[in-house]
Parts: sequence; C-alpha cells; structure tokens
Amino acid sequence: MCGVFGIHGHDEAAKIAYLGLHALQHRGQESAGVVAGDRTLRRHVGMGLVADVFDEKTLGRLPGAAAIGHTRYSTAGSSEVRNAQPFLFEYSGGSVAIAHNGNLVNAEDLRNRLEASGSIFQTSSDTEVIVHLMAKVPEFDPVNRLIAALRQVQGAYSLVLLADDKLIGVRDPHGFRPLVIGRLKDGYVLSSETSAFDLIEAEYIRDVEPGELVVADNAGLRSFKLATSEAAPSRFCIFEHVYFARPDSLVNGKSVYRARERMGTRLAEEQPAIADVVIPVPDSGVPSAIGYAKRAGIPFEMGLIRSHYVGRTFIEPQDSIRHFGVRLKLSPVRSVVDGKRVVVVDDSLVRGTTSRKIVKMLRAAGAREVHLRISAPPTTNPCFYGIDTPNRSELVAASHTLDEIARYVTCDSLGYLSHEGMMSTMGAIGEDGEVGVGYCSACFTGVYPVQLGKGGDGELVRLRRNKV
Amino acid sequence: MCGVFGIHGHDEAAKIAYLGLHALQHRGQESAGVVAGDRTLRRHVGMGLVADVFDEKTLGRLPGAAAIGHTRYSTAGSSEVRNAQPFLFEYSGGSVAIAHNGNLVNAEDLRNRLEASGSIFQTSSDTEVIVHLMAKVPEFDPVNRLIAALRQVQGAYSLVLLADDKLIGVRDPHGFRPLVIGRLKDGYVLSSETSAFDLIEAEYIRDVEPGELVVADNAGLRSFKLATSEAAPSRFCIFEHVYFARPDSLVNGKSVYRARERMGTRLAEEQPAIADVVIPVPDSGVPSAIGYAKRAGIPFEMGLIRSHYVGRTFIEPQDSIRHFGVRLKLSPVRSVVDGKRVVVVDDSLVRGTTSRKIVKMLRAAGAREVHLRISAPPTTNPCFYGIDTPNRSELVAASHTLDEIARYVTCDSLGYLSHEGMMSTMGAIGEDGEVGVGYCSACFTGVYPVQLGKGGDGELVRLRRNKV
Amino acid sequence: MCGVFGIHGHDEAAKIAYLGLHALQHRGQESAGVVAGDRTLRRHVGMGLVADVFDEKTLGRLPGAAAIGHTRYSTAGSSEVRNAQPFLFEYSGGSVAIAHNGNLVNAEDLRNRLEASGSIFQTSSDTEVIVHLMAKVPEFDPVNRLIAALRQVQGAYSLVLLADDKLIGVRDPHGFRPLVIGRLKDGYVLSSETSAFDLIEAEYIRDVEPGELVVADNAGLRSFKLATSEAAPSRFCIFEHVYFARPDSLVNGKSVYRARERMGTRLAEEQPAIADVVIPVPDSGVPSAIGYAKRAGIPFEMGLIRSHYVGRTFIEPQDSIRHFGVRLKLSPVRSVVDGKRVVVVDDSLVRGTTSRKIVKMLRAAGAREVHLRISAPPTTNPCFYGIDTPNRSELVAASHTLDEIARYVTCDSLGYLSHEGMMSTMGAIGEDGEVGVGYCSACFTGVYPVQLGKGGDGELVRLRRNKV
Amino acid sequence: MCGVFGIHGHDEAAKIAYLGLHALQHRGQESAGVVAGDRTLRRHVGMGLVADVFDEKTLGRLPGAAAIGHTRYSTAGSSEVRNAQPFLFEYSGGSVAIAHNGNLVNAEDLRNRLEASGSIFQTSSDTEVIVHLMAKVPEFDPVNRLIAALRQVQGAYSLVLLADDKLIGVRDPHGFRPLVIGRLKDGYVLSSETSAFDLIEAEYIRDVEPGELVVADNAGLRSFKLATSEAAPSRFCIFEHVYFARPDSLVNGKSVYRARERMGTRLAEEQPAIADVVIPVPDSGVPSAIGYAKRAGIPFEMGLIRSHYVGRTFIEPQDSIRHFGVRLKLSPVRSVVDGKRVVVVDDSLVRGTTSRKIVKMLRAAGAREVHLRISAPPTTNPCFYGIDTPNRSELVAASHTLDEIARYVTCDSLGYLSHEGMMSTMGAIGEDGEVGVGYCSACFTGVYPVQLGKGGDGELVRLRRNKV
Repeated sequence: MCGVFGIHGHDEAAKIAYLGLHALQHRGQESAGVVAGDRTLRRHVGMGLVADVFDEKTLGRLPGAAAIGHTRYSTAGSSEVRNAQPFLFEYSGGSVAIAHNGNLVNAEDLRNRLEASGSIFQTSSDTEVIVHLMAKVPEFDPVNRLIAALRQVQGAYSLVLLADDKLIGVRDPHGFRPLVIGRLKDGYVLSSETSAFDLIEAEYIRDVEPGELVVADNAGLRSFKLATSEAAPSRFCIFEHVYFARPDSLVNGKSVYRARERMGTRLAEEQPAIADVVIPVPDSGVPSAIGYAKRAGIPFEMGLIRSHYVGRTFIEPQDSIRHFGVRLKLSPVRSVVDGKRVVVVDDSLVRGTTSRKIVKMLRAAGAREVHLRISAPPTTNPCFYGIDTPNRSELVAASHTLDEIARYVTCDSLGYLSHEGMMSTMGAIGEDGEVGVGYCSACFTGVYPVQLGKGGDGELVRLRRNKV
Repeated sequence: MCGVFGIHGHDEAAKIAYLGLHALQHRGQESAGVVAGDRTLRRHVGMGLVADVFDEKTLGRLPGAAAIGHTRYSTAGSSEVRNAQPFLFEYSGGSVAIAHNGNLVNAEDLRNRLEASGSIFQTSSDTEVIVHLMAKVPEFDPVNRLIAALRQVQGAYSLVLLADDKLIGVRDPHGFRPLVIGRLKDGYVLSSETSAFDLIEAEYIRDVEPGELVVADNAGLRSFKLATSEAAPSRFCIFEHVYFARPDSLVNGKSVYRARERMGTRLAEEQPAIADVVIPVPDSGVPSAIGYAKRAGIPFEMGLIRSHYVGRTFIEPQDSIRHFGVRLKLSPVRSVVDGKRVVVVDDSLVRGTTSRKIVKMLRAAGAREVHLRISAPPTTNPCFYGIDTPNRSELVAASHTLDEIARYVTCDSLGYLSHEGMMSTMGAIGEDGEVGVGYCSACFTGVYPVQLGKGGDGELVRLRRNKV
Repeated sequence: MCGVFGIHGHDEAAKIAYLGLHALQHRGQESAGVVAGDRTLRRHVGMGLVADVFDEKTLGRLPGAAAIGHTRYSTAGSSEVRNAQPFLFEYSGGSVAIAHNGNLVNAEDLRNRLEASGSIFQTSSDTEVIVHLMAKVPEFDPVNRLIAALRQVQGAYSLVLLADDKLIGVRDPHGFRPLVIGRLKDGYVLSSETSAFDLIEAEYIRDVEPGELVVADNAGLRSFKLATSEAAPSRFCIFEHVYFARPDSLVNGKSVYRARERMGTRLAEEQPAIADVVIPVPDSGVPSAIGYAKRAGIPFEMGLIRSHYVGRTFIEPQDSIRHFGVRLKLSPVRSVVDGKRVVVVDDSLVRGTTSRKIVKMLRAAGAREVHLRISAPPTTNPCFYGIDTPNRSELVAASHTLDEIARYVTCDSLGYLSHEGMMSTMGAIGEDGEVGVGYCSACFTGVYPVQLGKGGDGELVRLRRNKV
Repeated sequence: MCGVFGIHGHDEAAKIAYLGLHALQHRGQESAGVVAGDRTLRRHVGMGLVADVFDEKTLGRLPGAAAIGHTRYSTAGSSEVRNAQPFLFEYSGGSVAIAHNGNLVNAEDLRNRLEASGSIFQTSSDTEVIVHLMAKVPEFDPVNRLIAALRQVQGAYSLVLLADDKLIGVRDPHGFRPLVIGRLKDGYVLSSETSAFDLIEAEYIRDVEPGELVVADNAGLRSFKLATSEAAPSRFCIFEHVYFARPDSLVNGKSVYRARERMGTRLAEEQPAIADVVIPVPDSGVPSAIGYAKRAGIPFEMGLIRSHYVGRTFIEPQDSIRHFGVRLKLSPVRSVVDGKRVVVVDDSLVRGTTSRKIVKMLRAAGAREVHLRISAPPTTNPCFYGIDTPNRSELVAASHTLDEIARYVTCDSLGYLSHEGMMSTMGAIGEDGEVGVGYCSACFTGVYPVQLGKGGDGELVRLRRNKV
C-alpha cells in the first residue's frame, strides 16, 4: 500500500509532486519522498508525513520540470529510511529514479540471481531488483531497458520512473494496482488516484491500462504494451474499492464512493437488522453506512466521531486507559446511541480487535444492541500484491466461524457482505456466471492470479514485509 | 476560543492533562501547555499541537498529583510563546498557575491601574491581570484571593488554577464559557467539554454553574458562589453549540450533536429547497445536514471529503492553485454531485470566502444547482467574550443583504436559520416570549450582556486580540 | 558568571549583539538571548550556545537599532528557560529589557518585601527584583527609575538595559564585574569584555566606572554617578584576571594575558621546581605557564592537547572509561612528557578532582614526576558576587592542608601563588602596605566587601544558585 | 581527509566507535557514521559532527560486538548524506560495511567498466567501486573477495570493513594514509590515529603496514600481504605530520608533535628573523612555533587566541565585518604584539587568503613588523590521494614567486622550510642522498608515486571531489 505520483512538463514539478503526495497520503504514512530534475536528478526522502518531510528549503533544492513522488505505508519490519522511495540510482544509462506501488512475487529469486552475478544491494526492497535488471540490459534507452527488465518480474506493480528526461509509468499485466493519467497545462501527470489531480487542478484523461507503459517527454505522451500482458486477464484489486482508495477518487474507472455505497445497499439486503440507528465507522465506512441506512429505512447518524488529530503519537499513562488507541481516534456520541439498537457499518474486519473495542465503547455509551455489519466478505487470506494484511494466523476470519467472531467482538449480531454480492455491485459477474471478472479478490477467496515464487508461506510473508 | 483542563488526585496528573488537551484540541491549535506539581509547580508550554509540544521527556519533567492544561486558538497578532498558557507566577502566597478560556472586557483598565501602582507585566494577556489582582489581596489563602480578585473583573472567564495544592475552577457569573466537573478514580477533573472525560475514562458529574467556584483538594470538592453572580442571568454562548464544541460533548448540560441536528431540522422547515441531495460541509456541518436531509426527505450524502491531514502547513506553487487552502482540506465527490441539485449545509458563514470556494468547487465537480443553507442566523456582530470572530467590517452579513451575499458566494439560493428558530430548538424561549433565555447570542443580535470597557470599537478589537 | 552586551545606533543591532555574545561565549554556555527594537522590543532566548539559539530566521524577527544580549553560565539548579536573559517586562513606563552579570546579596529580602506588597514574579532570578523596584518608582523616565531602584539593591551588578529607546549600562559602586564602552560607527556598544569589540570592529573607549551609569541614545552618550558609590571603594573581581576573562580582553583597564603571564613569573619565583619541561593546562593556563617557564628557565611545551569539540555532550559506555570527562577534553602528548619531570601550571584548583585526573593521565603517559603549580592562591571561600564557585565544603583548600591536597591530587609537589604575590603582580599593594587595593579577592581571603543578607550560609548558597 | 575506526570484540562496539570518531573529529567534520552488528549489520550516518549525529537513542539501535566508523571532511561539491560513510551493502556474500580514508585514482575507469556490465551505483563515492568489485569475485569469503578486488584499484586507501563477523583493515601498498592497530581488553581496534586509542584506553600495538591486510575475528588477529605491495615503496603522506594529524598522535610510528617541533627548529635555522616575539597560528602551528622560538632564542607567546566555539555557522551582518571568518576563529592579543616585531609561524600557506587576514589583524593590533614563517615547503601541487587541497590554480605558490606572495600577504618577510630541510627532520634522506625516502610529498614536489588515471587535470579534480 503506497501512493505514487509523477509529473513532466511543469516549472515547479517537485512542488506539484509534493502536493500530489498530500492527496495520496492515505495510501502511506511511513515515509515520503520526491526525486526531481531534468538531466540531473535530486532526491529528498524522509520518514513520516509529506508535510513533515518537506519544507520550503528542501523543495527549493529540487529544481527541474519533471518529478516523481512516493508515500509509503507503515509496516512493522522494514521501517527504515534506506527503504524510503523514490530510489535514485546511477548506472551506465545515467540516472534513474523509481517509485513503486505493489509487490513482486519473484523478487527473492531475482535478487539471489543478481547477487550471484555480482550485484550489490542498497535496500531490502523488491523495487531495487527492477533497476538492477534494467542495468543489465544492453540498450541505452531507459524505456527499452525497463520493458526488457519487466519481462522477468512477476507480481503487482504500478511504477513511475524518471530517466533520461522522460517520465515513465507502467502497470503490471494484471493491473493489480491503480495508475491514472492526467494533464496539467502543457504537461502530463501520473497518480495512483484521481484525488491528486483534483488538488492540483489537473484533468483526468484515463487509466493506464494493465500491461501498458506510457512515456511522457517533450514529444508528448506515447504508449507501449508489455509483451507479457497479452494473455493476462485484468485483476484489479477489489480492496482498493472496499477500503484503500479515497472516496472522492476514481480508480479503475469507477467511483470509489459509489462502489462503497452500493456495497452498503447490498449488505442491507443480505444482512438486515432490526435497529433504531445506522452508524458508520468513520471515515471509510461512511458511504456504505449511508447505503445501508437508505436501503434498510433506518435513520443514519454519525454516532462515532473521528479525531482530526490522529496520526500523531500519544503517550499512554502507566495506569492504562481501556481501548486507548481506538479512543484517541474515535469517540461515541452518547446522545445518538444511548438506549438504541445500533447497526455499525465497517468496511473490513481483519484481526477483530478494533471492532471489539468499538462495540465495547458503544455499549459503554448506552447502546442497547450492537449489530456489526461488514461491507465486504470475510478476509481469510493474506495479500501478496501490495496490501499489508497480516499473516493468515492473525486473520480472525481465516480460522473462526461467524459465531466465534461475533462472540469475540461481543456484538449482538454480525453480518458480512457475500463475495457474490460484492462482485455483483461492481458489475463483475461474467456472462458465464463467473464471479469477480476483472478483479483480484484473493484476500477473500484465496484464488491468487499470479503464482507465487518458490518457497512456503513463511517466505512469502517475508517477501511482503520487504516492500509494499 | 481556548480549552482548559484540570485534574487533582492522580499519580500521573500531567499525562492525564495532556490527554485531556488532546480531546480539547479543536478549541485551540496555536499553543499548548501544562503546569503540574504538588507544592512545587513545573511548567511546559509550546507553540503548536499538543502532540508536538509534549513528548515522553517533557512529560517526565512534570511530576505531581495535580495539573492544569490549556490549548490556545490561533489568532493573528499575539501568537507568541510568552502568551502560551497556563501561566505560572510566584507571589507572596507561593506559586500560582492559571489557564483561562474567555475574555475580560475591562482588562485594559485594570492593567493600567495595576501598572500605575508598580506592577510589571510579562505577557500581553488579560489573564495575567487576574493574578496581579490576586497578589494585591491581603489574604493568604489563594481561594479567598481569587474570589476577591474576581470582584474587579468583568467579562467571560472559565478558569482553572493550581495554588497551594488545590485545583480551582470557576465560571463567570454569566457562564459564557463552558466548564464541566468529572471524577476520575479518587480525584476530580475539570474540562471545557466532556469529550476530555470520555478519552480519559472520567465520569461526568455536572457543569460548574455560572458564578460558581469549585475547589478540589485532599479534602474533596467544595463549592463557592461569587457574590457578583447574584443578579447575573445565565448567558451561555450559543456559538459553542452552533460550531465550537465537539459533537460528542455535552456543554451546558446539552448534547452538541442533538442541538445541531435539531437546528438542521428547523432549517429544513424554514428554508426548504428543491434538490436531489443534501451534503454537509464536514465535520461540523454533518449533524445539521443529517437533520435537514431527514426533515426535507432528500437523500443525505458525504459529497465533500475532508482530509485527515489538515492542520499542517503546505507550500503553494508560485503558479498558484485556485482555492488552495480549501482544496487542501476539502474535496468534492464528483459521483455524488455531478448533474445534481445540491443543498450544502454549513454551520456558519462568516466572511463568505470559504463558502464561495466550496460552491465553486461543487460546480466544477458538476453540481447543477447549489443551495447553501446555514444552520445559524447571519453573524452580524463581533464577539467580545472569547470567540475569535473577525471585525465587524469583515462580517459579510453585517453590511450585505441576503441577495448580495448569495451573489458573492455564487450559490443559487441562500437561507439562514432564524434567531427565533435557533433558540426554540434550544428550548430558549421564555414564558413571556423572550427569545434566547439563558444564552448569549450577541454575535447574531448585537445585544451584549456585559457592558464593554471604555473606548471605541478599535480598543475592543485590541482587547479581543490579546487573549482568546 | 555571565556575559552582557548592548548596542545603540546600528541598523542591524540584533546581529551585532549576537556576534558580541559569541565573543563572550566563554562567560556562559547555558543560555543565550537578545532583546532588540526601537520603541517596540522583541525577545528571543534559548538554552545552549549562541550559535545554536539563533539562526537567520530568529535574528530576522528582531529588527531595530538597539539591542542587548546575555549569555548565562551553566549552573546546576536553575537551568530553566524562564531564567534565560535578557528579561523583557512591561510596566507603566512601557517596555524594559534587562541583562545582568553579577549577583545581588539582598535579593531575597527585596523579593519578600515586593511580594508582600503584591508583586508577582515570573522567574527565580534576582535580576527581576530590579525591574519590580523600577516599576514602583513614581517617575516616568526609566533612567531615573533605575537610579532610584539601585539605591535599594546591594551586591554585584553590571547591567545593560533597553528602555524608552535608550541603552543603559551600569556597574555597582564596587565595580565587581567588568563593563566596557566602545564605539561602532555612529553608535555605542557596551560589553563585559573588549573581546566582543575586536570581533565586531568596535573601538574600545574606556571602562564604565564603578558606580557609573551611562546612557546611549540619539543624543549621544551621557554619564551619571550612583549616589551610593561615593563611599564605596573599587573591588574588581581578581578572578576575572585569574581565570574568567578571555586572555585577549582588557578588563578593568588591564590585559588579561599579561596579568596571567606575570602571575606565572611570580609563581616560578615563589614555587620553583626542578624539572625538564613546563606544560600548561590549556587554554586558560597557557600564559601563566609561559611566564613560569621563562622565569624558571625550563622549556615550555604543549604537553596537553585540548579538543576543539568540547562543549558537546558525550555518552559514556556502561563499562566506563577512567577520567572520561577530562579525557574528552584533554589528552597528554606522550612524546613531550614520557620520562620527564613535568611542571603543570593551572590557574586554579577548586575541587581537586580535575587536577587529580590530569596528574594521573600524565603519569600514564610516562611522566616521571609531576609538579603542580597553581597561578593563584588556594580557593578557600565561596563567591557571592556572581562567580559560580561550589559550596565551601567542596572547596578542597578550605579544609585541607597543602600536603593533604597534594596527596589527593597524587602530584609530587604542589605550590600555589601567594595572595600578596598575586596582588603585587597586579600593582595592588597600597602605599600603606595594604594588599589587594582595588580588588575583591574574597574567594582567596574570606574578606567580603559587601555585607551579606540575613540568613546563614545555606541561604547564601540559595541566592547564588538563583542567578549568576 | 577522513578518519576511520574499527572495533571487534567489545559489548558496546558502537559506543566505542563513536568515541573513537570523536578523537578523529579533526579529520572530518562534514558527516559521521557508524555501522555495527554481529551477523546483522545496522547503520546510522548523518551530516555534521559526531556529537550531533549520534545520541543515546541512535546508539541504542546499533547493538553488536563489532563496529566501524567514519568521519568525513567537508568538501564543496559532494556534501550529501548519501555519500556519508560507512556504506552498508548487501551482496551474495551477505552484508558488507566499508569506510575509507584516501582516494582511488582509477575509480572512474573502474566505475565505467562496472556500469557497462550492469552495476548500479548509489553514491558518487569511489569507495562504492571497491564493494562492486568484491561482489563480482566468485568466492564466498569476504577477505578473499576484498584481496581480489584490491588487485584492480590504484591509489590511496586505508580501509576498515565489517563482513561475516570479521573486522578487516587494510592499507594500500604505498601506505599513503595511516592506520594503526590497538588492543582493547579482549578485542582489537583499528584507527587512523592513536589519539582514538588514548580516549578509549586502548593499547597501541603497531601500524598496519603498507600493503598489509589484517583481520580481527573471534579467532584473533591475522595478517595478509597484498600481492601488489611487493614492488611498492612506502609513500606515507608527509602532510599528515605537517598539518593533518593530531599532535598527540603517533602516525607512521612517529610523534606528530615532535615532528612539527623539529620542523620549527629547522625553520629557524633556515629562515631566521630579527624579532621580539614568536607566535603560532593555533592550534596546529603551536609545536613548530615553540621549536622556532627555542632555536631562535626569541620569546614564545600565544599572540593569537583561538575560539573554543568555532565549527558553528555564524551569520554575518549585511554591513560586513572585515576578515569575518578568520575573526570568528582567531583574535590577536594586543598586549603581546603591540609595538613588537612579530614572527608568526604557521604550518602551511595554501591560498594565502587566511595568512593575509592574520597579518592584517596583527598589524591592526599594533604589530610593528610581521614575519611569516611556514614550517613546510611551498604547496605547489594538488593531492590526488585524499587530502582536499584546492586546484592548482588556487595554490598561490604554484604560480607566484616568494616576493609576490609576501606582497599579497602584506608581511614584512616570508620564509618557507625547504623540502630537504623538512625531510631531514623526518630522517628521510637516503644513504644515496635521496630526499624523502618513504614519504609522498607530491604536494610540494609534483612527483606523484601512483600514476593517475587517464584524462587531464580536470578529470582528476573531479575524481578528488568525489571522495576524500
């Protein structure tokens, strides 16, 4: 889970990239960075939020008409500044900068092979592999190099690169992760989501297609097709719509807000509840709760308030406070829930610990009944394509029945949206009745579109930890 | 507009105060501070957010079982660290710390008199006047000193003090600003709003009454009545309910969420609109928009998304972006508003500049019509009791007709809630038909409950700038 | 032990003050600050070194043609930013800023009296007392106020003040602490030492005399005589020459370097040693070691190297290093001392702990004999006039014989300069044979020129801790 | 000009390395870093001084019993954190960390070849080339890899590496740069100079020999000889003795202090002057000035005071101060030089600008005559082996006669030590009369022991800029 952004043809490219990253901040808060320049590329990265990593001075040191940027999600293991992207390398073709959203499944294999041939690595990220592969290609043009390199990699990648005065964007043949193209004045922009275009007043043109590589340079925009994309069916990550993308974004050509609202509507049909009020877990649960409430004919209220000041670390007293982390972020509105039968709509239930705290907080605020409704199916499998889900053993739905989960969470009833229901709201039912056409929903179904690298589950987990 | 917090009888008083301030952060983001101790008081204050001002180390330097804290609103002029509260002074009675929410209207007079008698001032805050007055009282007990000092001050004050191992809380006779009492284990807590109690798991007991002074020490909680409070009618600031307090708080004994929702309901009755969708300006406009939508029978949607990462400074490109400030904070959801007739509900319209930008952004996102509804009356007068409203000349409603404002804001229609409507939703219509019983609504009516100090409007403005 | 600086009549007064403080940095490393302005005064202070407290931005916020600055010595107890000078107060006369080098002996008395009359204090510094006294004077002119205030204070003070567009400098009637006057272009400067003048290219005019008050404003420089100064004999602190002032400075009209070198010469006469090499403890011991070596006819060498990077905190391993603190600062040159009989010349021996470590380090580096020579008499009494000497109980010479000290220090011989010898090198022997005419040498003799305030030694110590 | 340090076999290896770097701080102030660990290596580097780059927290994150450290000199171009050493790479052999003092002359060639074969570079440093070469060697053992890699590099290198739980140290066959071996308890330490051993209480064993590679691991210390070292004569950098090393250090087995003092003695013989006083330019000029003064029979005095607080940035007023940079660092003692004929002894004269400022400052302080004596020959050629001398065009002695330089510097007379004189004080005159046996003095003679890479002077300069 990361956000990538690129721009070509703007006097203040680094500043635009930095603003673009602000609009992609929800995709990653661990680190942020920008590489900018024309022939000479300069890099600034740091741990933390975009607003904290950059200031007038650091932006001033990044001149040039092209830039790429990256925000990185906070994961446990590899939280080090050396893994902060974009990376900037020098090789025989000059300088190349790269930013990556996704996860390669054969990175470990490739890395071993590269190291055996004498390559040295600077980071623990799978992204570095791509540049090593590029460096080995006996071509001068970076686009040709990249195309050749990508022939060897498998997995999920939406990449933006700067090389040789060109901005390059590419999505893997399955198109797991989003990447959209826009126009800003005379130049072009690339972004994980359209939310970045809205902020900088760029015009959305279209999505980069799965298996497509686009190049923006002074000659305009050109498009290439990766050879490997021929046979590959589209597999856009359904979780982007369920939870990850911003509701005001279009991803994969569809409104995130509307997708969530429709999931909420369908959820009300599949999992009705007798209740006095429907409340969302803000902010991502709001559209589906609205959809649920409308379909169910139960009043919608904001029964949980989300603090504007989260994302900061807070120190807990030794005499600890119950549900401290959740409490800092969410607070129940007693006047909304007191004495009521409450439907709480959330977009996912991963470990169950947060849901449990929310249910308890609502009861403490007077809720008579708490009915938990999840606008997605049970999350039963880890993601190997760039979403930082926990190991299978931590996914409560992987090893527990609905009843067991409900008991753990302490709710009066628990209902998930069905996989078929979710996919039908997305129009992803094939003519042959195939459920999920065009989408990857491996986290719900365990059906992985791209074969994993050798090694067992442990190794896969290790892969995932390296880079998201 | 500030938040105050106090605690007595807790091993980690400073940490609890710091968490309490986090839950009052919406009342002021300019500076934050805590004074803690038993007999020896220690102080730490800084510019910025609570989470940035304090860390494990600074909190570790504030031992003791009692503490008070303060968050200060960002105002233009007096943004200096020397004005960051709580203040800590030494006088013949020992040490005294003080934190203030409100504004004294005769501070300038008192300050001139005190300086003439040889007092020296360290800050440009009216709060310091109170401590100078305390220091002149020929009594030892700080409670008696404070009571005597308050005889001389006029205006709005909810104060918390630490002195002589006592926590003191007091509201002015009119009770302009809120202050609530809670219990945390064996100790007592004071806070501007109950939101702080929810975070720290304290139990709400009751509001400090107008003109009441409470003392928490090892003997428990005692209550005193200010002599000046006899003839003073309650004048609780209606703006706390309209805009300022957090929706999950009780202030003046009433739910802020429910008050806003009822104002929205009444607004729908007074100012209907033919439309396809009702959307709030988040976050403060959400409850009134829900109320409006329900009463009007028009679907409610979150048509504007608020960024989680606001409150950080962002650098604008030289080639500037339209509506930059609003855009960083709010973004329209095209799929919600495109092609629709939209009712936008906001809680106030002060200068009109933000509303204008929102209307334009909504139109750019495809809204066919934009009907702006304000869940409060026109703001026509400045506040002298602690809300940082702009000068009268900047209040667009003070000098423009409804039509002129609508034209400026570029909306298709504009409707405010009536003063009577607002007050009737608060149950503030007297038996004699008097509108606004128990409330100060001077900002809407120009009727000021406390006479202002000598001097013209300019001086008043200066007063206001000193301290909020 | 502090440094003060003032300037009037320069476009970049704050920047000049800041450079002046750099040249006075040796007088205090705990905190630094500048107040600058014309009618409106602005203040910036911080903990640490001048170079760390100020940057382009903070200096840019201090416009105006007049400024005062202060560097404060690191003392144990009161190391808080609220005690960082200059102070800035507002009183009926407007604003007044003050910076103080010295120590008032009746501050506690005065403070009690002021608090009893209703004054409130912001700091634990004796300097604040002076401004409170000024505020009580029924005059408008700050010079008259200050003169009246100083009638009530006793002790050591070299003050610089800014008030009413005037720069004021004053030394107490005994002239304990230095203060010199210079000219910089069309304006005037005041400084603790001439070293600051050399850096900023100001021209030294003369010393402010004991009991003299000078005022620099747009009319030029005027001089006043404090009434209390009539009967007061000069008592310039001999320790300034022995140790405290910079060797390139003139203080009290005399070269510090030459004074130290002459003390070294006299020391060689009084305390000869049979040795192969004379080495100083750098940097303050260098001139006296040169004087010693020349007179004794023994080669001078730099047998101890002082690190350029001291003044930074270093973390010690758990498995601690012997003499860690001294080792970080000083290292012996083996090739100079190995196999030699070494005379080490230092300017003072206070607790004896550092000398002991130096002797041991020299022996470890091969010194055959170590003869310690101190170019001042034994320090037997604490200072109450602004030098941060330890309590009497920690002064090793106060309670131990020469032999005991030598044994503790582990040197082969120990010799001090006699009090008479020291004073004769300063030309401070009266015609009547009185030793020490014009100087305070209470730390060596116990003869205190100004009577101490009531209370025992403990209180005095407390006084001293408040402010140096 | 950098400092390197390594340790193996100590529980707090990172802390010891950090202290070692403090004692090597004079060798580089631009950046500092430590890599520590056992099998897993962790890295922390930063711009600035050791004391500012590290704190308790960052050191706490560097556990392990082995560590290497590096301090880097401030050069103009490549001052970027990505060039801060030690570097840490991963390759097929695992992790390897490296720190380098010196400069490779064929780095550009090697880099081009490596890039052509697909290597990607992370830094602009020549040091990275060595690790790439190691990575290409088809061996597992890092020692064998390093030995093979070094076969291909030419130039100056004293390296410390950590790999596979081994600490490795190596000097190039000519031994341009110093590297010494010590023992600390049960472990071994390597350092550029012995000054680091003195601080950490390690015992000096011997120098690493030119062309020697030593390995410290749990089995003890082993020594290898580089094949290329057979025919290579020793060429230790004479500038280490003249200027660069700390006077309390032994480098190349000789006392730096004594070497300088002897150069001063010889200088007095070769370049006498009729004068009243001899003063050094502190600190590096002190020993040679002492030697000069003794031999000439003229009194030695510290006529220039060096500030303890240099190394911090200071902001200059717009109305600039003459000789600002030198003035911040050095101040003349008027009482020493006023009316006197002064001999100033400095260790080098590179551009002449600093000397000119010193001469002018001394005259302004009253010096009647100023005779400048340099305890080394004229610097006429740039260094390509790791000393950051300026380009030939900036070396004043490369293109000006003695008279011209003296006129520029405005001194009354100017005298350099002869090359033969310098070498004879070092005992570096061969039996055949060869001057400079065992030393590189190319900066004085233009005779470069190692042939330079292809390309003209411009390319060489570029090389030098990359890494020192």
